[in-house]
Amino acid sequence: MMDKRIGFIGLGNMGINMAKNLISEGYHLQVYNRTLSKADELDAAHITKCNTPADAAEGVHIVITMLADDEILKEITLGNEGILEKLPEHALHISMSTISPETSEQLATLHEEAGSHYLAAPVFGRPEAAEARKLWVCVSGDQHAKDTAKPVLDCLGQGIIDFGDTVGGANVVKVAGNFMIMASMEMMAEAYTLAEKNGLDRTQVAAFFGSTLFNAPIFQNYGKAIAGKQYQPVGFKSKLGYKDARLAFKLSQASETPMPLVNALHGRLLTAVAKGRGDTDWVEGIGRGVSEDAGV
Amino acid sequence: MMDKRIGFIGLGNMGINMAKNLISEGYHLQVYNRTLSKADELDAAHITKCNTPADAAEGVHIVITMLADDEILKEITLGNEGILEKLPEHALHISMSTISPETSEQLATLHEEAGSHYLAAPVFGRPEAAEARKLWVCVSGDQHAKDTAKPVLDCLGQGIIDFGDTVGGANVVKVAGNFMIMASMEMMAEAYTLAEKNGLDRTQVAAFFGSTLFNAPIFQNYGKAIAGKQYQPVGFKSKLGYKDARLAFKLSQASETPMPLVNALHGRLLTAVAKGRGDTDWVEGIGRGVSEDAGV
Amino acid sequence: MMDKRIGFIGLGNMGINMAKNLISEGYHLQVYNRTLSKADELDAAHITKCNTPADAAEGVHIVITMLADDEILKEITLGNEGILEKLPEHALHISMSTISPETSEQLATLHEEAGSHYLAAPVFGRPEAAEARKLWVCVSGDQHAKDTAKPVLDCLGQGIIDFGDTVGGANVVKVAGNFMIMASMEMMAEAYTLAEKNGLDRTQVAAFFGSTLFNAPIFQNYGKAIAGKQYQPVGFKSKLGYKDARLAFKLSQASETPMPLVNALHGRLLTAVAKGRGDTDWVEGIGRGVSEDAGV
Amino acid sequence: MMDKRIGFIGLGNMGINMAKNLISEGYHLQVYNRTLSKADELDAAHITKCNTPADAAEGVHIVITMLADDEILKEITLGNEGILEKLPEHALHISMSTISPETSEQLATLHEEAGSHYLAAPVFGRPEAAEARKLWVCVSGDQHAKDTAKPVLDCLGQGIIDFGDTVGGANVVKVAGNFMIMASMEMMAEAYTLAEKNGLDRTQVAAFFGSTLFNAPIFQNYGKAIAGKQYQPVGFKSKLGYKDARLAFKLSQASETPMPLVNALHGRLLTAVAKGRGDTDWVEGIGRGVSEDAGV
Repeated sequence: MMDKRIGFIGLGNMGINMAKNLISEGYHLQVYNRTLSKADELDAAHITKCNTPADAAEGVHIVITMLADDEILKEITLGNEGILEKLPEHALHISMSTISPETSEQLATLHEEAGSHYLAAPVFGRPEAAEARKLWVCVSGDQHAKDTAKPVLDCLGQGIIDFGDTVGGANVVKVAGNFMIMASMEMMAEAYTLAEKNGLDRTQVAAFFGSTLFNAPIFQNYGKAIAGKQYQPVGFKSKLGYKDARLAFKLSQASETPMPLVNALHGRLLTAVAKGRGDTDWVEGIGRGVSEDAGV
Repeated sequence: MMDKRIGFIGLGNMGINMAKNLISEGYHLQVYNRTLSKADELDAAHITKCNTPADAAEGVHIVITMLADDEILKEITLGNEGILEKLPEHALHISMSTISPETSEQLATLHEEAGSHYLAAPVFGRPEAAEARKLWVCVSGDQHAKDTAKPVLDCLGQGIIDFGDTVGGANVVKVAGNFMIMASMEMMAEAYTLAEKNGLDRTQVAAFFGSTLFNAPIFQNYGKAIAGKQYQPVGFKSKLGYKDARLAFKLSQASETPMPLVNALHGRLLTAVAKGRGDTDWVEGIGRGVSEDAGV
Repeated sequence: MMDKRIGFIGLGNMGINMAKNLISEGYHLQVYNRTLSKADELDAAHITKCNTPADAAEGVHIVITMLADDEILKEITLGNEGILEKLPEHALHISMSTISPETSEQLATLHEEAGSHYLAAPVFGRPEAAEARKLWVCVSGDQHAKDTAKPVLDCLGQGIIDFGDTVGGANVVKVAGNFMIMASMEMMAEAYTLAEKNGLDRTQVAAFFGSTLFNAPIFQNYGKAIAGKQYQPVGFKSKLGYKDARLAFKLSQASETPMPLVNALHGRLLTAVAKGRGDTDWVEGIGRGVSEDAGV
Repeated sequence: MMDKRIGFIGLGNMGINMAKNLISEGYHLQVYNRTLSKADELDAAHITKCNTPADAAEGVHIVITMLADDEILKEITLGNEGILEKLPEHALHISMSTISPETSEQLATLHEEAGSHYLAAPVFGRPEAAEARKLWVCVSGDQHAKDTAKPVLDCLGQGIIDFGDTVGGANVVKVAGNFMIMASMEMMAEAYTLAEKNGLDRTQVAAFFGSTLFNAPIFQNYGKAIAGKQYQPVGFKSKLGYKDARLAFKLSQASETPMPLVNALHGRLLTAVAKGRGDTDWVEGIGRGVSEDAGV
């Protein structure tokens, strides 16, 4: 059945888990990834390996992209042998990467011109959440696209939240949320370092806040890592965090919204990158930065 | 029974609710408050109104203080007709105000010299939490003092967390926690203003984060107020928030811990006070500050 | 003589004064400006009004541009009927606008490909300095271009400083310098507001610093305006200052150089723009921002 | 002649040079210094070594103090065997240290109560300037005190600037000025590091600004050191710079003046101290901090 054949582009830490969930729900995936060998992790019976994004988009009614940044998404979509070369008329591109609303708006227009559709559907959640179908999916765009995407998105997360008709809306929410996560990490790193330098046990303080006033996943999971200075394994790199800080900063400029904490976090992550720590986990990029400034 | 008679000093928004809970547990309170008429809210049969802190501390084995800041606590304790003039030998002063660890250490020493004891026991929770016995009580100091205080503190909150023998420890945790709360408010105000200026509904965005990644009371309650720009009634004043920012800043200086977000929040609340908004709720002090800078 | 005929594009506050100086040195200008009527201020006998940038560049060995920002310069140079359409082979484009080094590098490459040359030559100085030939001209690019430009640049300023062969070098210096100017303004606004709120006379304090430790033009001229809150007439707009802050910020990102003061100034000017003061003088954008935050 | 005998307390880098200048003008000094052997640098014929501040103040009509901070000045003035124990009635204490206006006001009151007088007279200038009588002396307090001090102060600097009757006024100017100096250093460090990371020569850039727009001593002298990363010899320590940042911060709090650049500089110097660089020159504390964050 044609409906069960979809294109899937981007097999990074997040994408690979999402692809597995789609396969286990009976989808057949036309996969494309820069390093195609990543697809070997998937059940060969239910995928077709493609050599170009265009091939992955050929003949399907839905193609999903989960890529690192705006530039790569644009290249994959608009470039030579890109999605738009072969995406069928009336088909839908579900764009799940963390990108700027500006890029979503630009791509949505180009899809409409080509007779196809584009839906912004960025997600919140780390790779473990992707694996466990616990992602939160934020969507924005036209209603028909949302209806079409729903059965597919239901396989990937625990909830779909609709942020309206303006296609960039969900991207704004995603950028705002990532800012809130990194600000929470900085806040904890400062508070726990203050505790440490005053003779307290960082871990106990983090456990207290994470089980009382701040008993939310962000403060529990990241809080534990920050308090314990657990910087391995690398889940989300500092340089990707810095990319997100740049997205937040750019959005603050574009919408004329002064955001002092965005400035502070941008500075923190830029410093991590400038010091050669772009490939560390962002818990380290932030947490170690705070510790170092405090001489501990 | 002597054990059921305790001194209680400070009938502000927090103290009055704590006093009610002690009375309902059978305690008789020797109360002192600068404006003594506040005591009229309490059951007259179970209190003795006192004209001085010294009188409130006379003959009891425990005196509780819940005051606005370090200076007032010092005056009430050490001043003319202060607690130390009449607090019996071996009696315990449970100090529940939000103050610097430095003040706790200084007072603890003076109590020991006077033959009495001092326990730091600051709390987390707004007046509603105090009323509902939902406070979190952080304690630090010597073990005997903690044991003595336990039955009393159990009447006031939902949990007692022990932060060790150094008497200022719990105060450090309280200062760190209030910093984390105000930083969370700023973070939300920035994120929701960014959403607003990008055409989204602040309230929806806040509801999403408060029910998913940030599903903790701070983000739900303050988040709702910040998103809805609900600045009434005034629960906790901006000038008290500024006082807490100063405590955090001072602690950052004393322990040589650079804290960029503390700087940002100190600036935010100082600006609120300088603009004549010291008596607004700190939700307004922070939230309106962010909105105004963004021209909305 | 062909050498005395040059193209001149951009008759803003700066450009118009520079054009006058070139005319008084005997040059004949092929002028282009979006609002061509601005050219009426120039001696009609020594100019040729052109309807397109291409026309202004036709047949000359040198064309000068003095424009508002990177986008406009690119449009004027590369757009339809732009400079490159008619600039003769071997001719030189002297680019005096405040732009990013990235743009200079990009344009230099395109000129080379077209057989012509490009020199970065941004200037320091306000319109009065332009009128009085007191500009400082920073140049970077290849030596031959500098030699060709020298006689022309000598008519415009009091000194030419060579920042090497990399064509973007002078642009970096210009961006860094404008950052230093705006940071100086902020610094003075903070210091003089501190003085004011402590009962001192802002003007006297400014006069003291401007005649002793800080006896440099920036602190004397801007210092007087900031101390006296003299925000009229509008010389350099806050929105242009904000543009420069963005250039500095972008350069700090591109070169991985964390710059806390750039962040602070970017925030200050973004706030001015967000509050609807983009068209005020940047002295007001900065100075009034500091005053308002202090409630005065 | 009695008028030529004065007390002089504090023989640090600044004080020792000031003392020499007074001696060369014919004054006889009753000197006190914590490490009294420092007085061996002075001409023994024109000094009397004293073992206590009180002795230095005995029998003179003027006593000068040049000390490290508020605490030391208070101890020297009010402590056991302090100045006020023996300063004659009607005599004048010229207080030249960098201290808070609050301390000046407090000391002035205590002097008046004791029948003597107090003048705030902080100075601008490094040790070389003190040696060369090139200090700028800011004074505030009552007129008679200024008249009495004038002949003495004329031996120490190139100008006396009167900041009015409120005794703390000159201290405010001094604190504001030191903030401006450290902000200038940070600004240069950021700008020159930006230049460096963009392939330019820091020294050339600094030389350009120091000879054009920023041709003032601060930018020339400190600029050269910052550009060249010349951190030796140690003239003014980072921990003293941090003390001054704290004074500025405290004053900003007391007068409700939000000052973002003060925050930034306070953070920079606190970081230097926390990293164990309190004893380096503040050029290093600031300059190396900027370089390190940029990974160079």
